Amino acid sequence: MAGTARTALVVSAHSADFVWRAGGAIALHAEAGVAVTVICLSYGERGESAKLWRQEGMTLERVKTERRKEAEAAAAHLGVADIQFWDLGDYPIALTQDSLFRLVDVYRALHPQFVLTHSERDIYNHDHPAVTDFAQHARIVAQAHGHNPGQKVLGAPPVFLFEPHQPEQCGWKPDVLLDITAVWAKKRAAIECMAGQEHLWEYYTRVGQQRGAQAARNSDRKVVWGEGYQAVFPHVVERLG
Amino acid sequence: MAGTARTALVVSAHSADFVWRAGGAIALHAEAGVAVTVICLSYGERGESAKLWRQEGMTLERVKTERRKEAEAAAAHLGVADIQFWDLGDYPIALTQDSLFRLVDVYRALHPQFVLTHSERDIYNHDHPAVTDFAQHARIVAQAHGHNPGQKVLGAPPVFLFEPHQPEQCGWKPDVLLDITAVWAKKRAAIECMAGQEHLWEYYTRVGQQRGAQAARNSDRKVVWGEGYQAVFPHVVERLG
Amino acid sequence: MAGTARTALVVSAHSADFVWRAGGAIALHAEAGVAVTVICLSYGERGESAKLWRQEGMTLERVKTERRKEAEAAAAHLGVADIQFWDLGDYPIALTQDSLFRLVDVYRALHPQFVLTHSERDIYNHDHPAVTDFAQHARIVAQAHGHNPGQKVLGAPPVFLFEPHQPEQCGWKPDVLLDITAVWAKKRAAIECMAGQEHLWEYYTRVGQQRGAQAARNSDRKVVWGEGYQAVFPHVVERLG
Amino acid sequence: MAGTARTALVVSAHSADFVWRAGGAIALHAEAGVAVTVICLSYGERGESAKLWRQEGMTLERVKTERRKEAEAAAAHLGVADIQFWDLGDYPIALTQDSLFRLVDVYRALHPQFVLTHSERDIYNHDHPAVTDFAQHARIVAQAHGHNPGQKVLGAPPVFLFEPHQPEQCGWKPDVLLDITAVWAKKRAAIECMAGQEHLWEYYTRVGQQRGAQAARNSDRKVVWGEGYQAVFPHVVERLG
Amino acid sequence: MAGTARTALVVSAHSADFVWRAGGAIALHAEAGVAVTVICLSYGERGESAKLWRQEGMTLERVKTERRKEAEAAAAHLGVADIQFWDLGDYPIALTQDSLFRLVDVYRALHPQFVLTHSERDIYNHDHPAVTDFAQHARIVAQAHGHNPGQKVLGAPPVFLFEPHQPEQCGWKPDVLLDITAVWAKKRAAIECMAGQEHLWEYYTRVGQQRGAQAARNSDRKVVWGEGYQAVFPHVVERLG
Amino acid sequence: MAGTARTALVVSAHSADFVWRAGGAIALHAEAGVAVTVICLSYGERGESAKLWRQEGMTLERVKTERRKEAEAAAAHLGVADIQFWDLGDYPIALTQDSLFRLVDVYRALHPQFVLTHSERDIYNHDHPAVTDFAQHARIVAQAHGHNPGQKVLGAPPVFLFEPHQPEQCGWKPDVLLDITAVWAKKRAAIECMAGQEHLWEYYTRVGQQRGAQAARNSDRKVVWGEGYQAVFPHVVERLG
Repeated sequence: MAGTARTALVVSAHSADFVWRAGGAIALHAEAGVAVTVICLSYGERGESAKLWRQEGMTLERVKTERRKEAEAAAAHLGVADIQFWDLGDYPIALTQDSLFRLVDVYRALHPQFVLTHSERDIYNHDHPAVTDFAQHARIVAQAHGHNPGQKVLGAPPVFLFEPHQPEQCGWKPDVLLDITAVWAKKRAAIECMAGQEHLWEYYTRVGQQRGAQAARNSDRKVVWGEGYQAVFPHVVERLG
Repeated sequence: MAGTARTALVVSAHSADFVWRAGGAIALHAEAGVAVTVICLSYGERGESAKLWRQEGMTLERVKTERRKEAEAAAAHLGVADIQFWDLGDYPIALTQDSLFRLVDVYRALHPQFVLTHSERDIYNHDHPAVTDFAQHARIVAQAHGHNPGQKVLGAPPVFLFEPHQPEQCGWKPDVLLDITAVWAKKRAAIECMAGQEHLWEYYTRVGQQRGAQAARNSDRKVVWGEGYQAVFPHVVERLG
Repeated sequence: MAGTARTALVVSAHSADFVWRAGGAIALHAEAGVAVTVICLSYGERGESAKLWRQEGMTLERVKTERRKEAEAAAAHLGVADIQFWDLGDYPIALTQDSLFRLVDVYRALHPQFVLTHSERDIYNHDHPAVTDFAQHARIVAQAHGHNPGQKVLGAPPVFLFEPHQPEQCGWKPDVLLDITAVWAKKRAAIECMAGQEHLWEYYTRVGQQRGAQAARNSDRKVVWGEGYQAVFPHVVERLG
Repeated sequence: MAGTARTALVVSAHSADFVWRAGGAIALHAEAGVAVTVICLSYGERGESAKLWRQEGMTLERVKTERRKEAEAAAAHLGVADIQFWDLGDYPIALTQDSLFRLVDVYRALHPQFVLTHSERDIYNHDHPAVTDFAQHARIVAQAHGHNPGQKVLGAPPVFLFEPHQPEQCGWKPDVLLDITAVWAKKRAAIECMAGQEHLWEYYTRVGQQRGAQAARNSDRKVVWGEGYQAVFPHVVERLG
Repeated sequence: MAGTARTALVVSAHSADFVWRAGGAIALHAEAGVAVTVICLSYGERGESAKLWRQEGMTLERVKTERRKEAEAAAAHLGVADIQFWDLGDYPIALTQDSLFRLVDVYRALHPQFVLTHSERDIYNHDHPAVTDFAQHARIVAQAHGHNPGQKVLGAPPVFLFEPHQPEQCGWKPDVLLDITAVWAKKRAAIECMAGQEHLWEYYTRVGQQRGAQAARNSDRKVVWGEGYQAVFPHVVERLG
Repeated sequence: MAGTARTALVVSAHSADFVWRAGGAIALHAEAGVAVTVICLSYGERGESAKLWRQEGMTLERVKTERRKEAEAAAAHLGVADIQFWDLGDYPIALTQDSLFRLVDVYRALHPQFVLTHSERDIYNHDHPAVTDFAQHARIVAQAHGHNPGQKVLGAPPVFLFEPHQPEQCGWKPDVLLDITAVWAKKRAAIECMAGQEHLWEYYTRVGQQRGAQAARNSDRKVVWGEGYQAVFPHVVERLG
């Protein structure tokens, strides 16, 4: 029944971001019965598909088709419940008010337990900060009683910001380290679907190892693979430690 | 059996700090079976006992005696397992290397699940930042294999910094909000033991209400009374949201 | 005569913000003969009127009408000289260039002694930061000699940012504490006009008490009720202390 | 031959900014054989031409004409290879997507060794932060393989942010100090072309002296005149010190 | 009568700091009838007397004697009521607990209206941050009722941090700009007493001009010479603007 | 001849830090003819020798002996000109004034071109921040003309802070990326000398790969292995880009 299903929402600027940055979290929660919706706002067809563009006679449509295939394959490995491609363009992405209200509808339909999206600053990427602002804005509108009155308004799902490519340069600090050891194989399989960005496979594999080692150091648990997140809101808890 | 007991450690600069700033956390975990040790490094006899000093013929020893009685009574209300008074003086507090190693011994004896202490900056109080540095330093020494080799070294208990009197001026940000609704009556009873600082009773009662209201706004739960903390280390988790 | 009147300008995103956040400053300066203009850019009809929307058969127009009545009643208690409702919508607010130039005209007409508006960051509210950017932008355009040449250009009125709902989460720091003890009764009366947000009455009453207590601690004066502000520009002074 | 020419790009919000803020860097690199392109996105005709507007019967067109003459004369003193006036308006500046792609074309045509533009924050000026965001955005689009496929994509030229009028208020920190002693006379000559802003001549002359003195203190070299910059990206180096 | 005299306290690490950094504030308040006490904790004899050490046969005692003469002459120009030389050494300065209590006694004797001392960070100088910590610490001890009970405890005088040599590198932000136009001649005369540091005369004269120009830009007043300060505590006020 | 030799100074808290954190920089400059002096202030015998302590019958002296052997072997691989062991203890390290002046003597003897030491904050390690404060303090004393008058005073060598174990948690930002591709094999060989900390070999190998990939992304050069540093002082340059 929809009312009792547990859900999560991932808002990804380009069609590969959810894999590098949140693949572990997705697989982990999917295994635990959470229905994860991934929204790829664009395919990253202009700005994040260098390898495809090096092929002879490439066109924008073919790039999009390839990128979509890769993302769908990755999503399957991760156990994504629903992946949507909104095709809003990239470099720059076009985040209209219509898209904002469309995302509000998603929040209202899912009532996600948590939300994952981009860091608030990225000096290498203009779409990422725009998308996190957009995703957080839609969350706030979804909380407004006067928006589509009669619908159940959104509560206060926590938002976690995923790791940008060069974290220190973007002022991003991982205050949450998630143990993804149990699902690393799935994340790696998803990563290997990204044929167009093979140069990043080992990079993000090492990120997983470093965050895993750090998670072990910050706890008394044995963690091998990790993902880092930055929480936007304070953690409301019933116990410390 | 000591090995299996769950414990927590509170390092308080002056003998009342643990009440205003962590009374809820103490009572909550004590009720849940955690043995909470509170170390009052000083009585706050010089700097935080204005009302007592206004009495005719007051002496330093009498102030200390009064402050100790108040703190013991408060600790009883909160269910503190062990309260220690180290009498290191205040304004300024004298944090020697001997005291550092004594605190290391406490860490090694308790292996606490979590540690509570002061904020890292306090423009109104010189002892508080010194104490948090001291408490965090002792934790690190307790992790060193070459300190008293043969003892079991400390793991990596999280450290939470409690709320200073004027939080924004001290750069303190509550990234953890603890629901203390269930134990508020105990915290209020402990607060009322602090006869020497009656002007703070209502102030910290209102702090509890504001943090409670904020906890409710940051979750979908009904929270009435809260305490804020700032985490020093990243949270290592197995689930988000 | 307009040229010699002392004036102040408050730019409020939604029709209740000026009450919770600046009611004391408004009443205090109004009593002192300053003509205070309050611009409510929207009614907060969608995002800040939960209680009204819970009534059977509520419509957007009725919410606006109620909110306007409440704000006008509050303004009367505070002694506001002029309250304007620009009805720009909320969640999201629509801040067009026409509205920008309209606000520039207000600056040029008033030459306010000081300006009050929202904090620069608010993770719970997307309209507030947009409005402070808008209000500060209009102030800068009003200083431009080439905008409506011939008009007297604006000087450099200080801008103070009012307290957001959860100050530490928004990176807001109160570097100015205003003693509003003399006008607290008026602020409380204005607060009680906000029938649609009764859950905030006690919250902001406690804010007034905490800021008052902090003002007393940061001075040698007896202050009971206070309001905090963050200054945007350096204070230019002729004496220290 | 274009392919081997060394080039640099300066993106200036208003037609005088490149003189006060980057005149030394321009002259220095021009002398060294670098072809420097300066883009003046607007003339600053509304917001930065107070003195001209004080003349009887002044019109917007006449202000623009005067400002253009001044900027061209200054550019000649500095050895600018190409100065362009895009006339996008000011206070506020209109930074459309068409202009963005036009600037991308400039990046692709020049492949500059480095880029100079405004600080990321300026509480006194709304156009400056908008322009640095625009200039950095265009740089990122110019790196995208899917933008005008077939063109050579941009590499990773460093970006340096020039000094705002009141640096501390704008959170700008000079982490690069450039020795402009050898070309100071040219910068001063360019400054003296700015007839409409004579009140700034001595101000920016003193800035040059202070930054020079600071450069001397941070090195063992004799530096008399300097310019400060804040680097956006990490310096990639083959030697330290 | 001591009880009614208005006083101010300046805590200077080395014997010239009060001149460069606070000469204007001292002269201005002295003219207004405030009795200003300046404490020179050291002579700066090792670290800030390069020119003297270049003289043949110089000794530590002779450097101290020269520095004292210069400081006394400067103090006379500024109208200092009392200048004290504590001779605590420099590079590094020795800030013992005895000296701390001696400074507490000064606070208790003066009950200053305001306090001036160094910035909290200075990457070029190790004594300056140590001194501001020391001066602020002593102020807090002076507020403690248990310190020398029976004495009148200190209230809450505001503390303003003076400008370091390279402000942006030290994270110092001038949030208070003081108009010292009326006393500039006295400050310049005091500066010219510093024969051992003639290279700084013009540097700090330019600082005065820049801060003056900035003060004019942040107000509607005519200010020519200024000094910048950073406030430690929030300003408690009865009016805004 | 000493006067003309090019030198560099590395101040390492524990005897392995210089390997993980600066091995590439050392090898690179050594190859280029720079005589690199490494000061190991302690052996890290208590806090960073877990594996050794797990051996039966280990003593403090044996740990020190092992650690010294490892460090000397690593230094040989890197081409260190001089490695010194000051044996000041660790957890906590004892940084006396005598040691400070001893380090001043080293600065005065070497006149290094640049200095490498620890980050300014490390929440996992209390010795590291103490050491960077100590090393920077000694540099400042070495600049004082009154310290050992007659000696040539130190100039202004830049200081670069090396990467801590968990960079984001320590507020460390790599604003300098050094290409160490040419000497990676030497750094790896040095790393493999650290028999007591084998769990860190792969961790710091991955750090080298990540910083290398980031260096490539921030330049148009082919970089495979990198080291990150944070500069303390502004870069004084004669050319940009």
